[in-house]
Amino acid sequence: MNEQSLIRRIRGRVHRSARGLIVGIGDDCAVYRPAGAREDLLFTTDWLIEGVHFLRETHPADAVGWKALARGLSDIAAMGGRPRICLLSLALAAWTTEEWVRGFFRGFRRLARASRVVLAGGDLARADRLACDIVVVGTAPRGEALRRDGARPGDEIYVSGRLGGSALGLATRRGAAWQRHLRPQPRLALGEFLRKLRVTAAMDLSDGLSLDLYRLCVASGVAAELTETLPVFPGATPDQALHGGEDYELLFTVRPGTRVPRRRGGVELTRIGRIVRGRAGRIVLAGEKLRPLGWDHFRRGG
Amino acid sequence: MNEQSLIRRIRGRVHRSARGLIVGIGDDCAVYRPAGAREDLLFTTDWLIEGVHFLRETHPADAVGWKALARGLSDIAAMGGRPRICLLSLALAAWTTEEWVRGFFRGFRRLARASRVVLAGGDLARADRLACDIVVVGTAPRGEALRRDGARPGDEIYVSGRLGGSALGLATRRGAAWQRHLRPQPRLALGEFLRKLRVTAAMDLSDGLSLDLYRLCVASGVAAELTETLPVFPGATPDQALHGGEDYELLFTVRPGTRVPRRRGGVELTRIGRIVRGRAGRIVLAGEKLRPLGWDHFRRGG
Repeated sequence: MNEQSLIRRIRGRVHRSARGLIVGIGDDCAVYRPAGAREDLLFTTDWLIEGVHFLRETHPADAVGWKALARGLSDIAAMGGRPRICLLSLALAAWTTEEWVRGFFRGFRRLARASRVVLAGGDLARADRLACDIVVVGTAPRGEALRRDGARPGDEIYVSGRLGGSALGLATRRGAAWQRHLRPQPRLALGEFLRKLRVTAAMDLSDGLSLDLYRLCVASGVAAELTETLPVFPGATPDQALHGGEDYELLFTVRPGTRVPRRRGGVELTRIGRIVRGRAGRIVLAGEKLRPLGWDHFRRGG
Repeated sequence: MNEQSLIRRIRGRVHRSARGLIVGIGDDCAVYRPAGAREDLLFTTDWLIEGVHFLRETHPADAVGWKALARGLSDIAAMGGRPRICLLSLALAAWTTEEWVRGFFRGFRRLARASRVVLAGGDLARADRLACDIVVVGTAPRGEALRRDGARPGDEIYVSGRLGGSALGLATRRGAAWQRHLRPQPRLALGEFLRKLRVTAAMDLSDGLSLDLYRLCVASGVAAELTETLPVFPGATPDQALHGGEDYELLFTVRPGTRVPRRRGGVELTRIGRIVRGRAGRIVLAGEKLRPLGWDHFRRGG
């Protein structure tokens, strides 16, 4: 079973509607509307597990703390939200020293301050391997949170930044690409800009363009054609740009004719293709079907 | 370092106030007040890790799913809230079969339905050992969430139900005590009743009366005297009732003279002592100081 099929099965078994629940399983965040509130609440939760999402020997403690939070913030950015509070569940392994914990929180705190999000709780435990699960709670004006299921045939597809940097960094462990891998920048300001621009769909690129675009297309019930040159991170291969995970850039679609600036807050915005009619999730690149080869825990990790 | 000192250190390093954050680190739930809302939102997150919180050979899959959710629901009950949605982060181990996953969700779903809480999202991963982190989001009328820091000298101390059942069950693995251990009942209806009764402080008994009462007293800056006979689960020892974890009953304090019924919804409510002036966290039982011997991951588990 792969991740998508397991999610489908879970959704089939346990998901039902609830008062106030606007978006449930399947988007970057769940969206809840409190009674009488002017803002919707966004919730997301993300693992960061030793040996799976990071390696003890490879990733410095402060980069682990930074990335634990960055993964959640990127989901809030993808919905056009503003992060407010977070909760951190942290299971420490026997090898974890006080110095490591200090380093972890140094990285965590740096990103929390920069993103104006406050740690409001969590849970602590011991485990064989270090594991974090981050919860980020954000807000968006009522009814305005971006979703991944709104893309329509004719829409233009964009990505922010340059792709493949994180995969290149993990492979080479040096230079700007390594920094990009260690300390990804959640695109929070850009997400709010896209919300105001009324893009039709958005999500973050956590598992690789080919897989994440596939997911956006499946959610929207559409197909896609990649027609333009991809913005590739300097030094990265086309494969890293297409399939590499953890770039934490934003993928979004707009109605044709929408004026999308070439840069926003120092981040390039590049048109890479268009949404077309067709079998949901089918992606064509240079006339050939593109397989969604990005990261899937339940295909590769098993 | 023990759990309390690690929490203190984390709180000292990263906690700062934020718009809308009413209760932060240190209570059963964080409390957030959305702009314009009539209700406050409660957030809690709880680990359930193989080899730490449950044993693969001992705990059936459906009991693991039930307990993963019950731990979060009990925190919502402790604040007098009503659960609305939950998110589940699930890391599956190599040994996890599809049958096990089905069993897990059978138990999870049973409790979710009974508690009217909807699974709205989460994250999936693979790991060496199975781990769950549950997030429950609840609501309480604005400003009415119960806290653990409101106990004042003169208040009477109560507990719900009978204590030590879960510890007895884990030791004997049979009978009603074993069922209590496997499928604890979060006291949601009772929590809402206590909120309306305007109790001065409340929390759930997850780590044992001695440790949890200590925490309530420290949060409130008071001491306590246990003056009455404890309501002991049939067959449990006094030590199991005093120090045994995972009963998930409620501990609460009321102003003297408050009319507390002897039972509520089939659950006994028993007065066990009173709050007194004194060093914060000092608890006296039969003239002697009671040591907080309940479960602390960072004292025993290390």
